[in-house]
Amino acid sequence: MSRAYDIAAFREKIGAIRSEENPVLVKQKSRDFYWYSPVLKRELDAVTADIVVSPTNEAEVANVLAAAHTLGIPVTPRGAGTGNYGQAMPLTGGVLLNLADMNKVVSIGRGRVVCEPGAILIDIDKATAASGQELRMFPSTRGTASVAGFVAGGSGGVGSITWGGLRDFGNVLRLRVMTMEAHPRALELTGADLHKAVHAYGTNGIITEVEMPLTAAYDWVDLIVGFESFDAAAAYGLALGEQDGILKKLVTVVANPAPHDYFLRHRSLVPAGKSVVILIAPQSLDAFAAFTRPFRRAKVLFDSSRASPEALKGLPPNYELTWNHTTLRALRVDPSITYLQVRYPESMGLGLIKRIHDKFAPEVIGHLEFIRFNGKIACAGLPMVRFTSEARLQEIIDEHEAMGAMIFNPHRYTLEEGGMKQTDAVQLAFKRETDPQGLLNPGKMVAWEDPNFDFAAGKNFLFPGLEARALAAEG
Amino acid sequence: MSRAYDIAAFREKIGAIRSEENPVLVKQKSRDFYWYSPVLKRELDAVTADIVVSPTNEAEVANVLAAAHTLGIPVTPRGAGTGNYGQAMPLTGGVLLNLADMNKVVSIGRGRVVCEPGAILIDIDKATAASGQELRMFPSTRGTASVAGFVAGGSGGVGSITWGGLRDFGNVLRLRVMTMEAHPRALELTGADLHKAVHAYGTNGIITEVEMPLTAAYDWVDLIVGFESFDAAAAYGLALGEQDGILKKLVTVVANPAPHDYFLRHRSLVPAGKSVVILIAPQSLDAFAAFTRPFRRAKVLFDSSRASPEALKGLPPNYELTWNHTTLRALRVDPSITYLQVRYPESMGLGLIKRIHDKFAPEVIGHLEFIRFNGKIACAGLPMVRFTSEARLQEIIDEHEAMGAMIFNPHRYTLEEGGMKQTDAVQLAFKRETDPQGLLNPGKMVAWEDPNFDFAAGKNFLFPGLEARALAAEG
Repeated sequence: MSRAYDIAAFREKIGAIRSEENPVLVKQKSRDFYWYSPVLKRELDAVTADIVVSPTNEAEVANVLAAAHTLGIPVTPRGAGTGNYGQAMPLTGGVLLNLADMNKVVSIGRGRVVCEPGAILIDIDKATAASGQELRMFPSTRGTASVAGFVAGGSGGVGSITWGGLRDFGNVLRLRVMTMEAHPRALELTGADLHKAVHAYGTNGIITEVEMPLTAAYDWVDLIVGFESFDAAAAYGLALGEQDGILKKLVTVVANPAPHDYFLRHRSLVPAGKSVVILIAPQSLDAFAAFTRPFRRAKVLFDSSRASPEALKGLPPNYELTWNHTTLRALRVDPSITYLQVRYPESMGLGLIKRIHDKFAPEVIGHLEFIRFNGKIACAGLPMVRFTSEARLQEIIDEHEAMGAMIFNPHRYTLEEGGMKQTDAVQLAFKRETDPQGLLNPGKMVAWEDPNFDFAAGKNFLFPGLEARALAAEG
Repeated sequence: MSRAYDIAAFREKIGAIRSEENPVLVKQKSRDFYWYSPVLKRELDAVTADIVVSPTNEAEVANVLAAAHTLGIPVTPRGAGTGNYGQAMPLTGGVLLNLADMNKVVSIGRGRVVCEPGAILIDIDKATAASGQELRMFPSTRGTASVAGFVAGGSGGVGSITWGGLRDFGNVLRLRVMTMEAHPRALELTGADLHKAVHAYGTNGIITEVEMPLTAAYDWVDLIVGFESFDAAAAYGLALGEQDGILKKLVTVVANPAPHDYFLRHRSLVPAGKSVVILIAPQSLDAFAAFTRPFRRAKVLFDSSRASPEALKGLPPNYELTWNHTTLRALRVDPSITYLQVRYPESMGLGLIKRIHDKFAPEVIGHLEFIRFNGKIACAGLPMVRFTSEARLQEIIDEHEAMGAMIFNPHRYTLEEGGMKQTDAVQLAFKRETDPQGLLNPGKMVAWEDPNFDFAAGKNFLFPGLEARALAAEG
């Protein structure tokens, strides 16, 4: 089922809206960081759109959607393309809706900011700084990621140790979403309705405006604390996470040998060994020191509040050592590295983390991110894996699950397979309303593409449109 | 052992420092809200100082301490006298060191404020508001309580649902403390050293400066949510507490019939029944509504963001319905009411709270305050008790403990008996250094007065100085 879209007719319908059809440039804009996964690299390498369109306002977005709807052309929205699972990759071609030019900060209030979808997270923080405010959370790609891309394709990240995740009530205030219809409508989502569009990869509406909560801004202090074992660092990280009076934005544990071997610019600061990476509010520094002192083996290896401007100059910020930037730094040194996403149930304590670490090291290099989850400090993992084969990767996943950990598989491009393997009924129902023809980001929502797909059968979902497209490209 | 202090000599030594010896005025300044407890009312009713001195700066404080030290006169520091256990009551007379005139906000930084000890909490918030900041926490007596009194005699209160208590690292940044010696020294305490003087009732040094952390200030919204049962309200309160993305300052549950019977100004808003009292940041209101909707029996009875200015005019702020203001409102209607302070271990869940409530209602009226404790949402209780006798009160305490709850007895005037019944070795060692003659707030630290006192023997500590003083007063 090879498809050919009438791109010429589409171009005519959108008039003066900026577009790009140079295949090299279009392919550049059709990818994200899917290549962290050797599985997705194999599956998605050929993916490309037919045309990139870059609207500058909501009216132009409506124009694009109406045109594509009329012509039956799929539309895949994209912010800055910093996803890791092909969230913004147009599996079956068509229109790549580049929202990067809609990047204004519209208004700043006390505790809230309204932005266009393509606003870059660090730019939002720069804009809100004058009011003493900043976003509650951001991914490690803060410097390049867009706010709507974060909301539609991310989960939380830096800041989640205090605020939980984007899925939590209150961490996104409002989304304005356009439907994919002959006459696109703009819907305003608040409260529980936000769940329809948060982390839906743009499959059920195009976000044209985002309102996010703000919190107090500080000149956060970057700290790296070294420990002699991964377990000791994990225990320290959890205990620090549970210190209610110490305001922090990040508590990350990275196992030996990653800090010394992969954090190249920090190499002289971090001797071979283990480390904890932390962001602390300046006013919490004394408390941090008092809390840390009884951990006899803990050694503060880096403290940005005491470092000279020269020493700081060449160093990336701490948050760019964490979350998926940890993987990125590993990949730059050792291209065989990939990763997993793990949740270690609180009920099993740190013992499970130690057992898994002991079982798989050095093939799997431990990486923990402490977060707040349902009111408690919980532990997520993004362990690095020295990849040998897809079969072995699956074996490692199966053994994690058998030991009691939950895997959110980052080697899958669908919403369900990367998440809880359950159909999100709310998002599906919303898709029926907003995208009745299934033209938005096709192939990402299994529940839409194949309602009877059996997740328990042990096979991956393969989107037929992706295969057809690949065949067409070859032919 | 009746004591007579050479007050005339003292007065001469302190020169121009303002003092007061009118017995009526001195007695007024010698008390707090100890009378919430019929036990303390009996024990402490006769307590009074000999003289009140009101220094206006640290040099005057040093002068007062040196003079009293030379003459062997006890000194009891006092902020605004809003304590509930006689924290600032001079059990054996002597000098009442009134710090209310040292009430300036010294400096405001990002995330921190430096104050004189007598600064009133609400005035600090007013001063820091221009910078978009406010204190992390305050007692329900915010409108009258002093910052050093809060630190020396309080525990947390409004704000603890987010930040934990004053005992937690980071919730007090620095204390400047004067020693009680011939030549008083000023000591600066930070980090772990703060534990020496926090919640020590001024027994081991006089606080002359306080540095507190600040957080983002909001026009908090007062909400009252009604439920048909105490248990349902408790379950809702815990679940709301565990919502990481909903920024809140207070989650209080007050059982039937207290809200309708005792919250007199709110009476028309709160029908007979139960209620939850909440403070929510305005930007969290949508999330609050979305979270609350699935609780079918929950009814929002009051929302200050939707109330008219006229409706708001006669109403006290929500926080003045909570913590020990709940008790105060009950006492105003029914003078037989007293209260307990309870901690319900998280491991026993809400079941314990229900069992205790079912067992003791209506003699005990449930009152829960959700707080953050060691990284988790925990539940403290300040249940109101219809007092009949001290024996019955003790029976209720014993039965609480037998069922698994912990009691922090508010009917005791010593540090240890009101707390964990353990000597605070750190505070005791610090007292040896700062007050070698034991002249600061005598009678409050059992470990100092009677190191061999047996807490397990079932008898209350009776401070000999208090008895001697009472006898002297009669004689």
